[in-house]
Amino acid sequence: MALIVKKFGGTSVGSPERIKNVARLVAAAQAKGNRVAVVVSAMSGETDRLLKLSLEVAAKPDAREQDMLVATGEQVTIALLAIALRDLGCPARSFTGWQAGFTTDTDFTRARIRSVDAERVIAALDAGEVAVVAGFQGVTPEDEITTLGRGGSDLTAVALAAAIAADCCDIYTDVDGVYTADPNIVPDARLLARVSYEEMLEMASLGAKVLQARSVEYAANYNVPVRVCSSFTDNPGTMVTKEDSSMEQVLVSGVTLSKNESKITVQGAPDRPGVAAQIFQAIAEAGILVDLIVQNVSREGTTDITFTVLKGDSERTREALAPVLAAVGAKGVVAADNLAKISIVGTGMRSHAGVAAKMFKALADEKINILSIGTSEIKISCLIESKYAELATRILHEAFALGSGSVAGDRDL
Amino acid sequence: MALIVKKFGGTSVGSPERIKNVARLVAAAQAKGNRVAVVVSAMSGETDRLLKLSLEVAAKPDAREQDMLVATGEQVTIALLAIALRDLGCPARSFTGWQAGFTTDTDFTRARIRSVDAERVIAALDAGEVAVVAGFQGVTPEDEITTLGRGGSDLTAVALAAAIAADCCDIYTDVDGVYTADPNIVPDARLLARVSYEEMLEMASLGAKVLQARSVEYAANYNVPVRVCSSFTDNPGTMVTKEDSSMEQVLVSGVTLSKNESKITVQGAPDRPGVAAQIFQAIAEAGILVDLIVQNVSREGTTDITFTVLKGDSERTREALAPVLAAVGAKGVVAADNLAKISIVGTGMRSHAGVAAKMFKALADEKINILSIGTSEIKISCLIESKYAELATRILHEAFALGSGSVAGDRDL
Repeated sequence: MALIVKKFGGTSVGSPERIKNVARLVAAAQAKGNRVAVVVSAMSGETDRLLKLSLEVAAKPDAREQDMLVATGEQVTIALLAIALRDLGCPARSFTGWQAGFTTDTDFTRARIRSVDAERVIAALDAGEVAVVAGFQGVTPEDEITTLGRGGSDLTAVALAAAIAADCCDIYTDVDGVYTADPNIVPDARLLARVSYEEMLEMASLGAKVLQARSVEYAANYNVPVRVCSSFTDNPGTMVTKEDSSMEQVLVSGVTLSKNESKITVQGAPDRPGVAAQIFQAIAEAGILVDLIVQNVSREGTTDITFTVLKGDSERTREALAPVLAAVGAKGVVAADNLAKISIVGTGMRSHAGVAAKMFKALADEKINILSIGTSEIKISCLIESKYAELATRILHEAFALGSGSVAGDRDL
Repeated sequence: MALIVKKFGGTSVGSPERIKNVARLVAAAQAKGNRVAVVVSAMSGETDRLLKLSLEVAAKPDAREQDMLVATGEQVTIALLAIALRDLGCPARSFTGWQAGFTTDTDFTRARIRSVDAERVIAALDAGEVAVVAGFQGVTPEDEITTLGRGGSDLTAVALAAAIAADCCDIYTDVDGVYTADPNIVPDARLLARVSYEEMLEMASLGAKVLQARSVEYAANYNVPVRVCSSFTDNPGTMVTKEDSSMEQVLVSGVTLSKNESKITVQGAPDRPGVAAQIFQAIAEAGILVDLIVQNVSREGTTDITFTVLKGDSERTREALAPVLAAVGAKGVVAADNLAKISIVGTGMRSHAGVAAKMFKALADEKINILSIGTSEIKISCLIESKYAELATRILHEAFALGSGSVAGDRDL
């Protein structure tokens, strides 16, 4: 007997047959005596179909109208799921974003949730109904329909769980949960029973696409227990929760990999205060995310500044830099593509020394050169050549004994 | 410089290319200094696609959820049209039914408009924007999304025109307007420049599918001038307005034809008060529309009651009658299919005698047998065998001199 929010992504509701599967899963949870609210995305492919239509009538669709358009995707899914649930004899009621009380700012196509007034959802739950809520969307105080941006359905689910004080928010995806490494690369990668919000955040931002970073932040802020699991198997999945003492006993929880990194080096920048600020200001204004910033030692009054961006942003970064480099009198900019960022993540790093040394040694033993290094309290990232990406993942997975054949890293025992 | 509501049906917005055509047409009207609100239907085929999806998840979709589902069809069109208009440099803003202030009752899938609070639409028009409003939908006082039933977009347009006191409501269809007869049957059928609300109502209910009867009633109640015209040609179309003295000078405005009629005869019903009421009560409860009721002379205390229904309702009518016939002790029921109803409509009939005689004689001259007759103040309908339908249409069109080669029936001279 719990109050649960269950979120199903586009793949899980990608066809009428799959919607019926989801309905059976939800009805079963309801039949066990739980109170269930469901958040769904648009059927897979639907958002792209709608965006394509908009590009057939205009080169640059207006953002407000684009939100009006794509918000229909989730509305179709909530209606179909409620219809399927009622067909199973399970009382259900669908709610668009505005009906479910999601108020956002007016930043169309990437609005931020301002408040959730879940009165109608709670009334439906109190009436014994499954509340089926459209993910990814909300409404401004002026009653304009907005969307939260790609992946926003996870955020809807977590925010709804916070608003109705749910016991858990189950995020159903096409993977079983969070693994110690990508099982496609590391065959004995192990499903983690629990990770902390902080670990999940690092993993999300490092390329493990299980859960969107904004959702994890929101869950951490409101202390919503999130369970990541598969809609296609019965695996219990991975719980994402507050850090606890058991987590600290594990040095490293997982190895994550982000390919498609570009390294940008600004050469011969004047070594005086404010130059770096100007450079990164220009990049930020272009909306490009920067990672692994390294400034080399100054020589003859100039310095090299190196950082990474996603490969797709490489050219735009150089364009954004051009006027700044001219203004500050830097020598030039070079970019290296085909790089990968490999990272180890673990709450236990906070209280353990020697983790970085162990990581660098493991890579060095295999003659893998490290091009840049970045760290946070619970993460160490190394930039390496892309061709070593999979090898490095397996090496580090084994070095920190994360595999199912190991016990050292297993906090679930 | 006028305030105009323009309504485009599913065919007119059936593809991105056609939506761009509509955008050009609307932008041109706006550029002439008019203030324009647009009402659109779902892209042709979209409503059926959505209903098909719902039938793939449940045999009998819940009505509330079905409205939630199909309301997305118009929402897609308003967004695309607003995007296309903005792409042409024409300021535009789309509104769903609830945003445009359409409040309805809670009769899902066939809701009735209770009120239109067009505040936001008027604000957009005042700001120099084209207001693009979703047809066919509204919201209950409890914020539940409803639809007005098939063809409801015409009603949305007329109701919006009434709410904002528009000078005219232009209904764009795939025909040029209202003709004296179906031009596919009568080659010299003539486009009528004007018809009265009453004539249009009779024509709508008699099978001329230009304009839905509910919309004509609404327009008559609020005295909204409606123009029926084509989105594919530049024809001025047909104005539907209040009756005026010029209209009375014309005996007959048009000939309409409804094929697919069934004649049902209840045989040997006891000739006592209340029997007919019981019979038609049972049919009404089954939601079947009845027309052309004829009761024959009583013989030996019993009578035959004959009426017509749409052929598709024939079997359901007999099913609905079965228990009543047993209860009242009628002998039985027979049905004749393959019948057509041919009608002449004209405001002038009110003040002219001999119209019916002329009609019957014209049919008799060609040996076409009349099986039943029904009349209203401005209409005479005859049930005939289906095989004579087209011939009878041409005969009556000529008998009342309605063709483009004639002058007698032309009120536009």
